[in-house]
Amino acid sequence: MIRVLVTGGTFDKEYNELNGRLFFRDSHVPEMLRLGRCHVEVIVQTLMMIDSLEMTARERAQIVEACRAADEGQIVITHGTDTMVETARVLADAFPPNGPKTIVLTGAMVPYAFGSSDGLFNLGSAISFVQVLPAGVYVAMNGRSFRWDCVKKNHETGVFEALCEAPSPSPEPRIPSR
Amino acid sequence: MIRVLVTGGTFDKEYNELNGRLFFRDSHVPEMLRLGRCHVEVIVQTLMMIDSLEMTARERAQIVEACRAADEGQIVITHGTDTMVETARVLADAFPPNGPKTIVLTGAMVPYAFGSSDGLFNLGSAISFVQVLPAGVYVAMNGRSFRWDCVKKNHETGVFEALCEAPSPSPEPRIPSR
Amino acid sequence: MIRVLVTGGTFDKEYNELNGRLFFRDSHVPEMLRLGRCHVEVIVQTLMMIDSLEMTARERAQIVEACRAADEGQIVITHGTDTMVETARVLADAFPPNGPKTIVLTGAMVPYAFGSSDGLFNLGSAISFVQVLPAGVYVAMNGRSFRWDCVKKNHETGVFEALCEAPSPSPEPRIPSR
Amino acid sequence: MIRVLVTGGTFDKEYNELNGRLFFRDSHVPEMLRLGRCHVEVIVQTLMMIDSLEMTARERAQIVEACRAADEGQIVITHGTDTMVETARVLADAFPPNGPKTIVLTGAMVPYAFGSSDGLFNLGSAISFVQVLPAGVYVAMNGRSFRWDCVKKNHETGVFEALCEAPSPSPEPRIPSR
Repeated sequence: MIRVLVTGGTFDKEYNELNGRLFFRDSHVPEMLRLGRCHVEVIVQTLMMIDSLEMTARERAQIVEACRAADEGQIVITHGTDTMVETARVLADAFPPNGPKTIVLTGAMVPYAFGSSDGLFNLGSAISFVQVLPAGVYVAMNGRSFRWDCVKKNHETGVFEALCEAPSPSPEPRIPSR
Repeated sequence: MIRVLVTGGTFDKEYNELNGRLFFRDSHVPEMLRLGRCHVEVIVQTLMMIDSLEMTARERAQIVEACRAADEGQIVITHGTDTMVETARVLADAFPPNGPKTIVLTGAMVPYAFGSSDGLFNLGSAISFVQVLPAGVYVAMNGRSFRWDCVKKNHETGVFEALCEAPSPSPEPRIPSR
Repeated sequence: MIRVLVTGGTFDKEYNELNGRLFFRDSHVPEMLRLGRCHVEVIVQTLMMIDSLEMTARERAQIVEACRAADEGQIVITHGTDTMVETARVLADAFPPNGPKTIVLTGAMVPYAFGSSDGLFNLGSAISFVQVLPAGVYVAMNGRSFRWDCVKKNHETGVFEALCEAPSPSPEPRIPSR
Repeated sequence: MIRVLVTGGTFDKEYNELNGRLFFRDSHVPEMLRLGRCHVEVIVQTLMMIDSLEMTARERAQIVEACRAADEGQIVITHGTDTMVETARVLADAFPPNGPKTIVLTGAMVPYAFGSSDGLFNLGSAISFVQVLPAGVYVAMNGRSFRWDCVKKNHETGVFEALCEAPSPSPEPRIPSR
């Protein structure tokens, strides 16, 4: 069982045709999981619907709290890309590598509701990584997974880049069951 | 570095507007990787463009040969879903779990060129699983990964189902490097 | 008030993900009118859902009957492109140029449910032509309107071509009211 | 022959994935005409790429000038919806009903590049109306055509509404040739 925590971000932005601005309504995550014919058991929980630039310590504490309250050991968080790494850092303080939870943050460069979004690819990626990565906090973007302390978003190119080269051993690698 | 071997399947079918039939042209995989803003290094190689119901021992031998010839240890194969498990079985004979290669087969229920395709989700999933799963042959569909010998396609529902419940130990689990 | 008579055709075909064949379910016309933010009053009536190659004299009689029974003077018919001109001919026998009805047939080369369909463009075109053209029977395809007796489908190119060059005077041109 | 003058507007807005803002690049009109399998001869000319709220007397004079310079008697103008009626008014001063030109303005509530755009429907509509309406200046939105002096955009609902009920006679109704 995987829990998906929705926090908003570009992923879920929509176009308001009356004023030409982007806004949030309901999350597209359930529809995207249907489209992906996802048959992993997933619980989707919307925590907030905000741009990640508006995220403060208060919202991050709320995310940590939701992870703590979750029964599931595998958690995917949809999040705006601008401050995704910052939230990952806060989560890493609360959920160490040798703990019981694998947490994967993901997002999108283009809203799912628009053409040419990377959202569906990224959701497929995050749902997959969370099932096989050992406990710890990760970012899944651009087809890759990054440990929370080995990644930054390059704001010029919009691409997430690795800060570490070498593999870091992890205490309890999860062995794929299926 | 990941090698993607394209064999056709629903994934890459298109609509011929002159005769109303489905057909193959070029693979959509490169476009899909662009859309997914995939920044893993990927080589895409088209082996054939056929419906998996037309696949015979000859084509399967060709796929095995291409995997053997590949320098990469991580291989994703796009394949029609109807006989995907059969091809996985043939590959498993050639590439044992304690070998040097992780091979993940994926496909789609609806052509990528049509609306509402699961293709982009599945490609994101396969590209992710192949980076983390230990050596061996797997099927990545419906958001899950299945060992080749623990999966069948339910032809009534179109869903891939696990045949094994318990985790199977694998000799050399790959430790995520990033 | 415009009446849209749905008969099926490529317009409304969908992809059956279990057997890989195209099939009909409900018409997409209501959704397309919503997408086009169409605020003309339109009644959508589904007569049949068939490929136009399967259309016989019996179905064409049914279409004529539905046009006759309609209170509206403006009728759009969605129809497969292969025998659209044949149905137009049958309608022209029943509805002469100096009669009370403007009837416009339209269709699509690619199903609306798939990417890259011409359906939405054609529906916008047909809905527009039917409001302005004088009484008579027309085909609206490829951004043009054709009188029923001045058009054929080029089956090599998929394009509808005019058989007449010169404008033909019509007894009662409709003067645009708005 | 129809000339399409592109001025920008929501029609042609795109999503900048680096800063999350909407912006203009090249017009989508040529691609949309291809998608619509439009086989009317059309010349597309980009005059400017701006939001219609930024349009001043200077830009409107430029549009009038481009219409005057055009050899074609049928002109479609893509335009932001917010001030479309204002531009129509300026054009009507320059191009009277008994003149040689039929000018149809159209636009979109949602950018074409996003999902669920009305753009393709509206372009099909405008391309059709311009071929059959008598000389004069019109707005084509919501599946309808409106004379420039009989229309306003309802900014609460985003819908264009008729201000006149009765048909207005036009000096030289165009008789459909095909």
